[in-house]
Amino acid sequence: MTEHKDKPLELNLAIEAPVPGELGWRYAQASLQPVDVADQLTALLSAEEIATCLDLLPLARRTEIFDYLSEGVQEEVAAVSNLESLMELLEALPADSAADLFNLLSSEQQADLLRDLPARNRATLQHLSRYPDGTAGALMTSEISLLPTGINVQRALEILRRTAAGSETIYHTYIVDPRHRLVGVISLRKLILAAPKASLDQLMTEELVTILPDQHQQEVVRLVSRYDLLALPVVDENQRLLGIITYDDAMDVAEEEATEDIHLSASIAPLEEGLLRTSLFNLYRSRVMWLILLIFANLISGVGIAFFEDTIAAKVALVFFLPLLIGSGGNAGAQASTLMVRGLAVGDVGLGDWTRLLGRELLVAGALGLTMAIAVSPIGMFRGGYDIALVVGFSMIVIVLFGSLLGMSLPFLLHRLNWDPATASTPLVTTLADAGGVVTYFALATWLLGLH
Amino acid sequence: MTEHKDKPLELNLAIEAPVPGELGWRYAQASLQPVDVADQLTALLSAEEIATCLDLLPLARRTEIFDYLSEGVQEEVAAVSNLESLMELLEALPADSAADLFNLLSSEQQADLLRDLPARNRATLQHLSRYPDGTAGALMTSEISLLPTGINVQRALEILRRTAAGSETIYHTYIVDPRHRLVGVISLRKLILAAPKASLDQLMTEELVTILPDQHQQEVVRLVSRYDLLALPVVDENQRLLGIITYDDAMDVAEEEATEDIHLSASIAPLEEGLLRTSLFNLYRSRVMWLILLIFANLISGVGIAFFEDTIAAKVALVFFLPLLIGSGGNAGAQASTLMVRGLAVGDVGLGDWTRLLGRELLVAGALGLTMAIAVSPIGMFRGGYDIALVVGFSMIVIVLFGSLLGMSLPFLLHRLNWDPATASTPLVTTLADAGGVVTYFALATWLLGLH
Repeated sequence: MTEHKDKPLELNLAIEAPVPGELGWRYAQASLQPVDVADQLTALLSAEEIATCLDLLPLARRTEIFDYLSEGVQEEVAAVSNLESLMELLEALPADSAADLFNLLSSEQQADLLRDLPARNRATLQHLSRYPDGTAGALMTSEISLLPTGINVQRALEILRRTAAGSETIYHTYIVDPRHRLVGVISLRKLILAAPKASLDQLMTEELVTILPDQHQQEVVRLVSRYDLLALPVVDENQRLLGIITYDDAMDVAEEEATEDIHLSASIAPLEEGLLRTSLFNLYRSRVMWLILLIFANLISGVGIAFFEDTIAAKVALVFFLPLLIGSGGNAGAQASTLMVRGLAVGDVGLGDWTRLLGRELLVAGALGLTMAIAVSPIGMFRGGYDIALVVGFSMIVIVLFGSLLGMSLPFLLHRLNWDPATASTPLVTTLADAGGVVTYFALATWLLGLH
Repeated sequence: MTEHKDKPLELNLAIEAPVPGELGWRYAQASLQPVDVADQLTALLSAEEIATCLDLLPLARRTEIFDYLSEGVQEEVAAVSNLESLMELLEALPADSAADLFNLLSSEQQADLLRDLPARNRATLQHLSRYPDGTAGALMTSEISLLPTGINVQRALEILRRTAAGSETIYHTYIVDPRHRLVGVISLRKLILAAPKASLDQLMTEELVTILPDQHQQEVVRLVSRYDLLALPVVDENQRLLGIITYDDAMDVAEEEATEDIHLSASIAPLEEGLLRTSLFNLYRSRVMWLILLIFANLISGVGIAFFEDTIAAKVALVFFLPLLIGSGGNAGAQASTLMVRGLAVGDVGLGDWTRLLGRELLVAGALGLTMAIAVSPIGMFRGGYDIALVVGFSMIVIVLFGSLLGMSLPFLLHRLNWDPATASTPLVTTLADAGGVVTYFALATWLLGLH
């Protein structure tokens, strides 16, 4: 992006003089990366203008650029494109992108296209668009470089040269038996270094990391990243090869999943588009539900306070320390839950580590609580004397321990119940820790100060 | 991991009978992926045992497994390894991993190794270990597949076959002029599909995405992911090729950076190891600083409350709504800051979008505040009558607006000041929103209820 900072202005001029032909031509000529062109078209043009502009480009360039438009923009552009353009795109796009595009179309457009598509493409499209969003199946492409068993290296290279154009990557080629079961993989590197007469079956690697099509896309990211794969084969229960997922698609999913987790950590429901492209209503909707739910969770704190109204009336000075104490419990809890949620997400910790983590958290939170009690006691001394310092310091230890243990346990519990552990968001943990803090503080105060 | 769940037990038995030779032999024979072996060695053995075990393996396997140990474990194992093993490892590891390992060694080990290493390896090592952690330079490898300009495809393939063993990837080959300046790139796919006599200079792609060695590793992730690169070339200011960064290293950095951002979002300083391997003291240290700082930020709320002590004494029922109101402001603020921090991190929004985002946030937060005021007013009515309902509802709108605007502005401000926007963590925003909430609520109550 930085490399092309000065480009939009120039292009803007071209748009003010409404010569879409010239603009399209400029893009086609421009030595810009397709992803940059896609971004600039999105920023500068309406869906209709993008469609017009794309139609003026050579098919290969048009396809590359279209593939980099965001899903929302693709949907808008597709809605105003004619059938002919869509047909060309569907045939030219990588099979996985074609399936995604197909899923974005209206049912009339889908029906029209299926009628006119060549039978082979139609089958691929229906095969790939069958898997729901968020699964490995939805990410895979069927344009795989394949070889049969029982051939030699020279023959393998001949086949590769002949079929390369239809494959998304030829750097890893999959070897399948006559029943289309995956039996091995070979890298192009190994192939071009091997003797021409060497047997493919002896050269290939037989231990393969694979995934089932209905597994979650988060698992795709984990496998590709853990095993440094260029591509991950998707197989059915009978080990038949259905497709592959390339590393670049896995990287996109990794970013998408990280964003989703980060948003969830602040009690925001997943957004489908970037922040600026999400409609105001969708932004509102993604935030309002949890905020309302948390109001009711916060009522627990209110009820706790109401219960101790006499204590407060007897010693209004106690309220001075309320935000500080419940805030500290919430903050320590937020830290503990965030560490757990992320640890579970990247596979650093598992359900089996529960007791060990609990022991560690007890020690760390205990030390934190003690440190914070020491930090806050002088303030208690200063504002209310020895009694208040004791109540505040003692409450701090209990509240920080409570918040931390709550924060670390909630994600585990949710994980155990097969919920997304990230639902144990910072606001949820903070709110629950607050309620515990209110009760702890006033109960201790009532007891230690003899206010009941 | 899931595939090998049953393995540790079996290996555990082998350890209880202390035959490290047998254990090593089992691993060498086992058809496990190196990353899985690395994980199991880490879980089951001490650093000394790992070193012994690795020494029994063939060098290629040993190198692969060592490369997958975490940095902390590598450091421990290296500390107890003899010089000979280290020398073998340094020569066999990919250049980038060798440089990382070298940086982990004690200065005596470093000096001893530099003395004994062949001159060429020594130069590479010193070249690569020069760049500080977190920069593009620290991620690159110098084992690049290179071609000169002015040759044809057949000659190019000959060179590649001869030099492939020393390159980390041969799927993209870089073309350099006699002064080692990067002039183009060609994919192996293109090479094997081209006519043998075709000119390399005409086939190569000349538009290259590159990076300078001192740029931040986050930029590496952005470029590799945005342009779907297999490898990103690192060049100096004169366009001379220094090394490449492969996509798998970029994926690791992406995960590391996401973890760091997620931890920062909960005011946790970056951890260098996974949750279970971080020492208790380091865990304590990564959490305590912000917790203490936030105590003092929370004092603002305390001072606010002290200022309104008379209002509270006059109407203790007001305290019932305190956690609910300040909690809501904090939660809305946490949402707004999280959206901004992530948007800035993935490049979705930039400084230039400030006014547009501000306008959008005003509308969304206004709608949220209104909704929440409507949700909470009946409770106010029920607990304190019309007056209280009015104060609580009106406070809610102001507090949610204040929290949201604070939450969205703080990351922008920090970004503007060239700080990490993620420093605007959820606990920080929540704490500041709390303070604003306290003052708003009691000021409105004092005024609307005529309590002054």
